[in-house]
Amino acid sequence: MKFILAPDSFKESMTSKEACEAMERGIKKVMPKAECIKVPMADGGEGTVEALVESTNGQICEVEVLGPLGKKVNACFGVLGNKSTAVIEMATASGIQLIKREERNPIITTTYGTGELIKAALDKGIKHIIIGIGGSATNDGGAGMIQALGGKLSDYNGKEIPFGGGSLNNLENIDLSNLDCRLKEVIIEVACDVTNPLIGENGASAIFGPQKGATPKMVKELDENLLHYAEVIKKCLGKDIAYTKGAGAAGGLGAALLAFLNGKLKRGIDLVIKHTNLSEKVKGADFLFTGEGSIDSQTIFGKTPIGVAKIAKRENVKTIAFAGKIGKEVESLYSEGIDSIFGILTGITNMDEALILGKENLERCVENVVRVLAL
Amino acid sequence: MKFILAPDSFKESMTSKEACEAMERGIKKVMPKAECIKVPMADGGEGTVEALVESTNGQICEVEVLGPLGKKVNACFGVLGNKSTAVIEMATASGIQLIKREERNPIITTTYGTGELIKAALDKGIKHIIIGIGGSATNDGGAGMIQALGGKLSDYNGKEIPFGGGSLNNLENIDLSNLDCRLKEVIIEVACDVTNPLIGENGASAIFGPQKGATPKMVKELDENLLHYAEVIKKCLGKDIAYTKGAGAAGGLGAALLAFLNGKLKRGIDLVIKHTNLSEKVKGADFLFTGEGSIDSQTIFGKTPIGVAKIAKRENVKTIAFAGKIGKEVESLYSEGIDSIFGILTGITNMDEALILGKENLERCVENVVRVLAL
Repeated sequence: MKFILAPDSFKESMTSKEACEAMERGIKKVMPKAECIKVPMADGGEGTVEALVESTNGQICEVEVLGPLGKKVNACFGVLGNKSTAVIEMATASGIQLIKREERNPIITTTYGTGELIKAALDKGIKHIIIGIGGSATNDGGAGMIQALGGKLSDYNGKEIPFGGGSLNNLENIDLSNLDCRLKEVIIEVACDVTNPLIGENGASAIFGPQKGATPKMVKELDENLLHYAEVIKKCLGKDIAYTKGAGAAGGLGAALLAFLNGKLKRGIDLVIKHTNLSEKVKGADFLFTGEGSIDSQTIFGKTPIGVAKIAKRENVKTIAFAGKIGKEVESLYSEGIDSIFGILTGITNMDEALILGKENLERCVENVVRVLAL
Repeated sequence: MKFILAPDSFKESMTSKEACEAMERGIKKVMPKAECIKVPMADGGEGTVEALVESTNGQICEVEVLGPLGKKVNACFGVLGNKSTAVIEMATASGIQLIKREERNPIITTTYGTGELIKAALDKGIKHIIIGIGGSATNDGGAGMIQALGGKLSDYNGKEIPFGGGSLNNLENIDLSNLDCRLKEVIIEVACDVTNPLIGENGASAIFGPQKGATPKMVKELDENLLHYAEVIKKCLGKDIAYTKGAGAAGGLGAALLAFLNGKLKRGIDLVIKHTNLSEKVKGADFLFTGEGSIDSQTIFGKTPIGVAKIAKRENVKTIAFAGKIGKEVESLYSEGIDSIFGILTGITNMDEALILGKENLERCVENVVRVLAL
């Protein structure tokens, strides 16, 4: 029997790779000869680099870059097994997890490090970049990223503007003549599940600013600055990205990827499915096992279990999902290709214990489902 | 497809009948035409009357009897669908749940009410009695029960001894000439999973006395009294039950059922299986679904899931078990006939919520297992 193991991570409990391994142990206890194809998944958020590297036998590259506050941080990106595609999580260089709560300040945080990661990928001869842009600490419209890649963002004195969303009001001109020329040969796909525009009441500053440390006054300033930024982009590049869907992702990094790097915004899970070659791998399989820490009716919106289930369904492969938490109205997922859903807990417990025992519980639950399949 | 639904109760959450109904709902959601044979089970403990009555289309009879402290209580017994077999739980008349913690006192508590229940069953023309003897408040060696049935237990003045384990030291003579003569025609089977002798360090008083309110001093007194009681039984009836296995069950009620009423001690689950006719019902079924609040390696010792799984295995019917809590080393049950075990919880919760949501969770989990069976 052939199983495709394509779980997301179980957040704070196990990575998607570890979930694959737990699933495989559970299957092998019942069917030692079963074929288990491990395809660790992610949805473009945290864990995407690891999942794609694991799924394609790629490798992780470590790079020192400027963090969101301009201090050096150790970041990384992945090179997939084909050696020509890189996968980057912007959060590793410019993420909110890199700075203490009291230091969060989108007036000064920069995406410069994300640009350095892209540069490091180009140095590896990469021709294709997948970039996940969740978890940013920034609201700089991706200005820092462009600066790192050779773009010149200057004020009315012709001087480079400083880092941070608070400086964009001084932007007068954008000069891309020194932009890293290798970028012309590179396809950039952006894993982006949000559809917020760059500016306005649903824009980057208003919706995501507060969680990055912006006060209401700062939100207003940041939003005005991004409007000005969009106007300069329009003036200099002829591109109007102020209200483009997704331009507001990651504090406007979405806008910069669209405007400067010709990036294509796509659903994270769709990108991961594409680059793991899941559609091919699933052919001829009997079952696809997936899972995530929590599965509920919201899982329908771009989450891994539904994404992989749709692929499986196309090939008439049955999908069984496993979760630490099964939420309300999960029945809506049955018609979307998830054939059955199991909770992995063994009894009343607290969160700490549930996280610690996650692998064990997943293994046991998978084992018991396979025991049913073997009947 | 034909399913046998034979769960025990999920204690404090649902009766075995309710568990059957939840299972049926889960199955019918997936297979509306499936045949579901509901056989609510019990293991001789709490819920045995209801389970046997439900499983056989019998009825409950209510009776007012003397409670363990000599006050009137409303008790009941069951008459099975065959109308000739009664099922009694001693705890309904003489159980620890009938008295407040501060009133617990095995020196004075009596099994008289249990005798009255037997008498009430005889009044219905019953020829076969199944009696479950768990949960007693008593340590009277079943003396009260025999008194209720017409036995005369007298002291050296020829006077009836008072109720309670504290009075047995005064017993001089046992006269059964006025014992209810209908008992001669009746087969009594005792659901008894403990093997403790009447007396000694593993005896009724030492092992079960403390939980019934006995202090160490009282335990000593009660044990000496039961020894004296056994000696008088031996003298008057020629039966030596002091060290018989199970004689110490229910404060020595086991001894009285053996010595006075020729009762046969059997495993509770075996009696319930026999009287529900489970072996016949399971024939031709595809699956047996069982369950209990908690399943662990101890389930092997006379608990419902293992008992019914063994019956199913004999007929090559596959058994799937459901539990609120799955304990350690549950793997040992696989080789005993339980093919697969599922936890029904959907996430982190507290005991109150888990109990309230028990039916819903069982239904959902069964539904998902049946969704797998339907693949």
